[in-house]
Amino acid sequence: MKKFTGVSDVENLQEIIKKALQIKKDPLSETEKGKGKTIGLVFLNSSLRTRLSSQIAAQNLGLNVLTLNAAQEAWNLEFADGAIMNGDTVEHIKDAIEVLNQYCDIIAVRCFAGMKSKEDDVNESILSQFEKHAKVPVISLESATRHPLQSLADCITITENWTEERKPKVVLTWAPHIKPIAHAVGNSFAEWMQEMEVDFVIANPAGYDLDRNFTKDVEVIHDQEEALKDADFIYVKNWSSFDEYAAMPEVKDSWMLTNEKLSVTNNAKVMHCLPVRRNVELSDEVMDGKNSIIYEQAKNRIFSAQAVFSEILDGLDSQ
Amino acid sequence: MKKFTGVSDVENLQEIIKKALQIKKDPLSETEKGKGKTIGLVFLNSSLRTRLSSQIAAQNLGLNVLTLNAAQEAWNLEFADGAIMNGDTVEHIKDAIEVLNQYCDIIAVRCFAGMKSKEDDVNESILSQFEKHAKVPVISLESATRHPLQSLADCITITENWTEERKPKVVLTWAPHIKPIAHAVGNSFAEWMQEMEVDFVIANPAGYDLDRNFTKDVEVIHDQEEALKDADFIYVKNWSSFDEYAAMPEVKDSWMLTNEKLSVTNNAKVMHCLPVRRNVELSDEVMDGKNSIIYEQAKNRIFSAQAVFSEILDGLDSQ
Amino acid sequence: MKKFTGVSDVENLQEIIKKALQIKKDPLSETEKGKGKTIGLVFLNSSLRTRLSSQIAAQNLGLNVLTLNAAQEAWNLEFADGAIMNGDTVEHIKDAIEVLNQYCDIIAVRCFAGMKSKEDDVNESILSQFEKHAKVPVISLESATRHPLQSLADCITITENWTEERKPKVVLTWAPHIKPIAHAVGNSFAEWMQEMEVDFVIANPAGYDLDRNFTKDVEVIHDQEEALKDADFIYVKNWSSFDEYAAMPEVKDSWMLTNEKLSVTNNAKVMHCLPVRRNVELSDEVMDGKNSIIYEQAKNRIFSAQAVFSEILDGLDSQ
Repeated sequence: MKKFTGVSDVENLQEIIKKALQIKKDPLSETEKGKGKTIGLVFLNSSLRTRLSSQIAAQNLGLNVLTLNAAQEAWNLEFADGAIMNGDTVEHIKDAIEVLNQYCDIIAVRCFAGMKSKEDDVNESILSQFEKHAKVPVISLESATRHPLQSLADCITITENWTEERKPKVVLTWAPHIKPIAHAVGNSFAEWMQEMEVDFVIANPAGYDLDRNFTKDVEVIHDQEEALKDADFIYVKNWSSFDEYAAMPEVKDSWMLTNEKLSVTNNAKVMHCLPVRRNVELSDEVMDGKNSIIYEQAKNRIFSAQAVFSEILDGLDSQ
Repeated sequence: MKKFTGVSDVENLQEIIKKALQIKKDPLSETEKGKGKTIGLVFLNSSLRTRLSSQIAAQNLGLNVLTLNAAQEAWNLEFADGAIMNGDTVEHIKDAIEVLNQYCDIIAVRCFAGMKSKEDDVNESILSQFEKHAKVPVISLESATRHPLQSLADCITITENWTEERKPKVVLTWAPHIKPIAHAVGNSFAEWMQEMEVDFVIANPAGYDLDRNFTKDVEVIHDQEEALKDADFIYVKNWSSFDEYAAMPEVKDSWMLTNEKLSVTNNAKVMHCLPVRRNVELSDEVMDGKNSIIYEQAKNRIFSAQAVFSEILDGLDSQ
Repeated sequence: MKKFTGVSDVENLQEIIKKALQIKKDPLSETEKGKGKTIGLVFLNSSLRTRLSSQIAAQNLGLNVLTLNAAQEAWNLEFADGAIMNGDTVEHIKDAIEVLNQYCDIIAVRCFAGMKSKEDDVNESILSQFEKHAKVPVISLESATRHPLQSLADCITITENWTEERKPKVVLTWAPHIKPIAHAVGNSFAEWMQEMEVDFVIANPAGYDLDRNFTKDVEVIHDQEEALKDADFIYVKNWSSFDEYAAMPEVKDSWMLTNEKLSVTNNAKVMHCLPVRRNVELSDEVMDGKNSIIYEQAKNRIFSAQAVFSEILDGLDSQ
């Protein structure tokens, strides 16, 4: 694997899921693989699961880890090409990337959507600079439009939790929030589900349809109860409006996931990428209930990352 | 050892002090013990000694270390059970803990008293969530009411510095400060001294008595000079009022420790957990004088942590 | 080597450059050298290159690394001797250093000039406390007046990029900036160049002469074009006025380095320590052009640090 910023970087999804599940059984089976190599984990935004699971995955592979909280520990970054840097920004992102090229064998970066300019976010104004200037493999730790290590962990989790012959019905359902939230997790989950052997639908209120570049022909239902019917897996996630970018059109119905809503499902497993706003996105009873596989899903972030790092290391060796 | 949040978790205090002193002689005697295991160090508050000594101790045991500065690096945490999270908090502490359960073999946490609600602090509103939700051993890196790794280091330091047959006289003396400071170090030292073979008294101004749940029957003297008489060890520490919670009743006498005050002691060794406000809590001459064992005490934080981590690892293996 | 805060700590400059270049060829040749030893990297200021290159260098030597972002992670530090600490400062720098003595075999510290008091900065008010109180070797990660690990990397870079018999002409040229910037990189480069087999001149506008304690008898030219003539290496760097301390006297000529200005040079290689303000200090075309060796220079920070850490470890063993 030469980079990992989306599902299109995965040659064979079933193979990498299988690999991740093998790693889960024996996380220390490749402790020499990364010896003498360095991964840089660059955080332009907050992180708990991604930060910790990436470190564990790297350590399990024997990689040296350099963690950089760019905003707090380094310099205020400039992102505009050709900028005359006579303002608040001290270092151009492309120079930071070129330096990371010198120091790292792999660069992983978290760069959320700014939620101010639709164009900047859709065009991945930050990740694209990493993809352009990095001379080593780039791994996304969540970018403006995608969160692929999360989505791989989601695929692992669904695979583990499904033993029937038939395809499971998977519903990505919008949830309420109090602030405009990015589309990355929703987009990304939609993309990956289209590569899985599942029946996939999206439920969201009118005005909240995701970008069709990610959802393609997936059915989008504006009635949550209808969408949840017979669901085997429910993925709960908020996002703001894409069409009216970052707006939050009023939603009159209650979209918070509750146990009552689970009653129309096929005893559905509930997923969420975390962090979750309890009693806003979903109720305490769901979060703490027997249908939640959310913590297991968080655990699978380790094996998602480790499978990807391992394949990236294979790609380095084959150069 | 299954957890370490106070002296009651120590089966045999003399044994663990002995173990720590052995580690001090040979810190790298157990470098394989923690191999393949991970300790998460979660800081909800500032830390210098605890942060560094815990990392060294973990490294000496071959443990992987994940350090999380929760406030700066992760998400704003909610602590209230049942909260409708439609405000500033992004992730519930119990979800963060459940995720740490997935990532760590041991969770160590620093969670100071908020000094706003006596009830919250006395009930350990944060640590109690870790004790409730953690599925792996929990180690306190200082909580609202106790600082047990400090207290163990204090016991190690006193043991090292006492060779006479008779019991030493140990005085915990209140010191001035400019802000309301928590009771954790004072409470904790008082608890641990009651388990040691020492004559222990507490000196503090009227209005500053510590919680009797920690000091029990220990003599509390409101006259510093009287208390210091014939002292072999003096432990200097500020705390705010407990009865009138977090208040700072006026103190007319001078309680700053000076060389002059040492003159009534038995050439007492001076201790402080650090950080210390020089020339407020104690004078430069004391801090820099021959009676201070404060830096050695800080060094012993390594061996305190390493002895505890080692026993916790023993507990993991015996499961 | 017993400490490393300036060129005077280097016994033989050509030898250490040679050592660094050997390390560059085989960075993992001494992975056992630092085993069981700990380096503390203390940052009182922002850092990208220094932070990452020091960590890599330490890891390559098998050293344990403790990184402390003092301001964010620990306590607000007091620097004044004899201070009555009844204000905002919580811990005296000398106590922090004494504790680091207990925890580290080597202490490395970044402590920029405050740019408020010329006297404090010239006297290295912070680094001097480390030099005074540290009981283990001290390494500067840039102090008020010098940046020696950068300067050594600069010497390595010039050595690598010069194959002719004659001495190269090296020009340190002032560049514009929007804020008062410290003199450390300029001072330090001037000092180290005087130890190298180069023809060295400094170009800066009137009013911007560096401290003669560092530049000694080096020719200072106030006309940039004249200085750049026939240059083989150009080192671009801003600094504020030294005489009128931290002031920014008006500069009427354009001092930003452009390709046009390179035309009078001997196809000079361009250097900068980074971070750089593009299109203020130098133009995009220079930064991204074929004459720039700036990223290679950044890479050499690893080998500069590793050579120094290695010699410091030699010094520890010989005690």
